Amino acid sequence: MRLARLGPLDAERPVLIDDQTAYDLSGLTDDIDGAFLAGDGPQRVAAALAAGALPAIETAGLRVGAPIARPGAVICVGMNYAAHAAESGSAPPSVPVVFLKTPNTVVGPHDAVTIPRGSVKTDWEVELGVVIARRAAYLDSPDEALGHVAGFVLVHDVSERAFQLEQSGGQWSKGKCSPGFTPTGPWLVTPDEVDHRGLRLRSWVNGEPRQDSTTADLIFGVEHLVHHLSQYLTLEPGDLLLTGTPQGVALSGRFPYLAPGDVVELAIDGLGRQRQEFRAWTRS
Amino acid sequence: MRLARLGPLDAERPVLIDDQTAYDLSGLTDDIDGAFLAGDGPQRVAAALAAGALPAIETAGLRVGAPIARPGAVICVGMNYAAHAAESGSAPPSVPVVFLKTPNTVVGPHDAVTIPRGSVKTDWEVELGVVIARRAAYLDSPDEALGHVAGFVLVHDVSERAFQLEQSGGQWSKGKCSPGFTPTGPWLVTPDEVDHRGLRLRSWVNGEPRQDSTTADLIFGVEHLVHHLSQYLTLEPGDLLLTGTPQGVALSGRFPYLAPGDVVELAIDGLGRQRQEFRAWTRS
Repeated sequence: MRLARLGPLDAERPVLIDDQTAYDLSGLTDDIDGAFLAGDGPQRVAAALAAGALPAIETAGLRVGAPIARPGAVICVGMNYAAHAAESGSAPPSVPVVFLKTPNTVVGPHDAVTIPRGSVKTDWEVELGVVIARRAAYLDSPDEALGHVAGFVLVHDVSERAFQLEQSGGQWSKGKCSPGFTPTGPWLVTPDEVDHRGLRLRSWVNGEPRQDSTTADLIFGVEHLVHHLSQYLTLEPGDLLLTGTPQGVALSGRFPYLAPGDVVELAIDGLGRQRQEFRAWTRS
Repeated sequence: MRLARLGPLDAERPVLIDDQTAYDLSGLTDDIDGAFLAGDGPQRVAAALAAGALPAIETAGLRVGAPIARPGAVICVGMNYAAHAAESGSAPPSVPVVFLKTPNTVVGPHDAVTIPRGSVKTDWEVELGVVIARRAAYLDSPDEALGHVAGFVLVHDVSERAFQLEQSGGQWSKGKCSPGFTPTGPWLVTPDEVDHRGLRLRSWVNGEPRQDSTTADLIFGVEHLVHHLSQYLTLEPGDLLLTGTPQGVALSGRFPYLAPGDVVELAIDGLGRQRQEFRAWTRS
């Protein structure tokens, strides 16, 4: 099942994408949020589709929003691909490295991204995102993890490296939370539709390839991360977990940082594509 | 003006505390949240009080909740008192050091705190909290900061030092987000009631003094922090900013970490007191 949210920012409408058809879910739920995911929302969607009870809608011209409502938390794992740790000047971590983004950074997959005022090191990061369905605290085993997962989503963890590493005293969040820095979507894809253990993930800048890896190379996989995180915090329905980015970012020194007018595209097999134009900051 | 939220967790009722009397605000607002603070909520409360239109309520036996609804973000500044930086083995920072807590850690000021499973280094931190009233992005000057502030609040930034420093790869959030780790309140106090530049803040463990300092010793004060943060992220109405803790925590090596049965008390002049019993983790 592929769920999406279409329409203006903060007024998106929940929809189901089935084959090439979009179905309006407004009659079933106000939004694709924690309450919907923690309850029997996806099951009710499936039942309504099977019963022919969902109205199809025309999507032409509609903005694609993030496929989930603003999360209660955006939890990120850093340095989770060995080759990316190496290009960043770090050894592979022995434990998951965890930091947070402010949830108000989550936007749609094709929304333009503003390069922050004063930025000279805005960088891209394609990531597999995990959306939580059911509260997870002190799980006993990684085997329990997927029972708490609603599905998977393509996420762009936009990063400003000077903010993150040079103006931060070593804590990364300052370079991760600028407005619009977490393009998410286009779809929330339920676990039955993809094998999250072997998804190819790629990014391009102005059509030139940058990242090209697979989630098979994750140092700490999804099940490990959900179990591990649940020992340190409570994962809530609707929370978004970012699993880390592979090698091929500007921080490596192999590519220039982003400039106004650049276009970044990202893709993960089965989870769709994103395209963002990067723009200069202006006083709005 | 002192605002509070009284009643069971997740079902608190908004109240005004005026002298020794509590007034029910349920007729004016559903909650003390970003929408209430960003609008004319406090002004409507003042007008209703002056008009004698607020019903007094009996508070005996009511739990004291956090005085604000769950924030969109809990933004923390580390090492913001020179003597605390020194006891932590660090030089005073040249820029604010920023990390985040998950908002689901916010609880009431007297709620018992569970020492996390596996914890051996649970520590206390008394802090001045700042609640945001109006969205702040790219402020031009620290002089604009207080225009975006709803008020001040006493916050306990409970921390697990092994999780934060030894099991983290250097990013602190893993030791800051265990369930119940952000006791907040008892009151949200509007800026006209306190001089936030010179508030004495103290903590005790089992009645013995631990921290005793003043916000006059902040390296980066409230106005500086709000302006600075607004260059890196958008502060939203209802967000909670923690300004850092002074010297006198267990991490210094001068005091033992917390054990089950310990009682921590905290106070900031004008912002009230907190008292928490620390309990052993059990499978609930």
